[in-house]
Amino acid sequence: MKMKNLFIIKVGGNVIDEPESLKKFLLDFSHIRGNKILIHGGGKTATGISQRLGIEPVIVKGRRVTNEETLKVVTMVYAGLINKNVVAMLQANNCNGIGLSGPDANIIPAIKREKGEVDYGFAGDIVKNQMKVPLLRTFIELGLTPVISSITHDGKGNLLNTNADTIASELASAFASNYYVQLIYCFDKKGVLKDVNDEKSLISSMSQDDYEEYKKQGKILDGMIPKLDNAFDAINKGVKKVKICNATQLLNLINSPEHIGTELIS
Amino acid sequence: MKMKNLFIIKVGGNVIDEPESLKKFLLDFSHIRGNKILIHGGGKTATGISQRLGIEPVIVKGRRVTNEETLKVVTMVYAGLINKNVVAMLQANNCNGIGLSGPDANIIPAIKREKGEVDYGFAGDIVKNQMKVPLLRTFIELGLTPVISSITHDGKGNLLNTNADTIASELASAFASNYYVQLIYCFDKKGVLKDVNDEKSLISSMSQDDYEEYKKQGKILDGMIPKLDNAFDAINKGVKKVKICNATQLLNLINSPEHIGTELIS
Repeated sequence: MKMKNLFIIKVGGNVIDEPESLKKFLLDFSHIRGNKILIHGGGKTATGISQRLGIEPVIVKGRRVTNEETLKVVTMVYAGLINKNVVAMLQANNCNGIGLSGPDANIIPAIKREKGEVDYGFAGDIVKNQMKVPLLRTFIELGLTPVISSITHDGKGNLLNTNADTIASELASAFASNYYVQLIYCFDKKGVLKDVNDEKSLISSMSQDDYEEYKKQGKILDGMIPKLDNAFDAINKGVKKVKICNATQLLNLINSPEHIGTELIS
Repeated sequence: MKMKNLFIIKVGGNVIDEPESLKKFLLDFSHIRGNKILIHGGGKTATGISQRLGIEPVIVKGRRVTNEETLKVVTMVYAGLINKNVVAMLQANNCNGIGLSGPDANIIPAIKREKGEVDYGFAGDIVKNQMKVPLLRTFIELGLTPVISSITHDGKGNLLNTNADTIASELASAFASNYYVQLIYCFDKKGVLKDVNDEKSLISSMSQDDYEEYKKQGKILDGMIPKLDNAFDAINKGVKKVKICNATQLLNLINSPEHIGTELIS
């Protein structure tokens, strides 16, 4: 039997923070036919609210350090402000979104990251094989589109902040035995670039070997490394397609025959 | 066939703002056997965050006036901070909560209240008969406990702020044909008091006629009036029991033979 399609779309970057970009993106997302899940974090909106509240954000190696006050802010912004506005906008497009965070129906159990070289505070690592995929499948079969924020929980009553790219990758992998899963990371750039300042330097397809080589050459840096680690992890766990593209190109990537963004290959 | 029980519990007042009170309340709530739904607003936490952000809250006739900035704050606090912390705490008690707001699966469609004597801003009135009761029933049958914040939406992409007491009453009424519904309002006082400053003046049961009489005598005032209007509305629409009690007494009210709080009678 042919597996049903499932698109798992992660959106990040400025598109979340700019109302018009977000509206356009969500209209495109609503037009994707078939099963889909949207995953988001928050980005600059959380930074702005933190500053207004007098909390200074700390970023180490591309990841936000989550102290107690920052945890409150990301919970408010990711799970509240962004998640509910996104769902309301999807509803206006006749896309039956349901906003969820990790504690909801215990969909994403996590564990507080232990202090290593860096203390990430209330950062949560997903507990492997514990995501509630059967329930999410039920929701999808009910015609719902899960919209998942990157707030998770430890099962002991504490919320945690998890990397949204990782949630997307882990969820995609967990669904890979039941669906033909396509994982798409949408952000501000055309895809993975050889030169971060030159949109013409797009890498249209990349294998794990290519990736290792680009890293050695210092062409892939910083925030892209965890994203690509997550992306290759999904490929290695049976996700059928993993692509990285500009958020404005989502529908083109899915519907047009021309090549868009960066495709990762095994 | 005997109808299954469904407890619809609204929690408000200081219990939401005080971590230890909330923890105790949620442990009690988790111990309620059978089907249950929790409904909450936010209260003083939203006021505190507003002040830190430099937004002054406006309350008219016991209801918050929701301007654009206030709408952001209540969305962050009710649908994010409080809703997700409550669900995480329920999960720690082995109660499988799922946090939802009005736009999620379109469970509570609302309409922006028209300007009358007072402009309530982004206040939403529930659209009658449009709540997604069948889907909520499905969730309950899946073993989930809905935890519903008072943020709703207008179906056009805009969030709205709705009175949580009203949501509790409307939901209870909407479920009344399928379940033996008991609606319980939990707050800081023992129940409805003849003298708001005297906890000994508890009214243990009250009919609609009694209520009208107490209002005439000026014994029931302010914030209690919309709460009681909602409560009697539920009684008149087939909800089996409607009670108002101190949040610390919830389990006693359900399990003990002694009389707790105020019971409304038709």
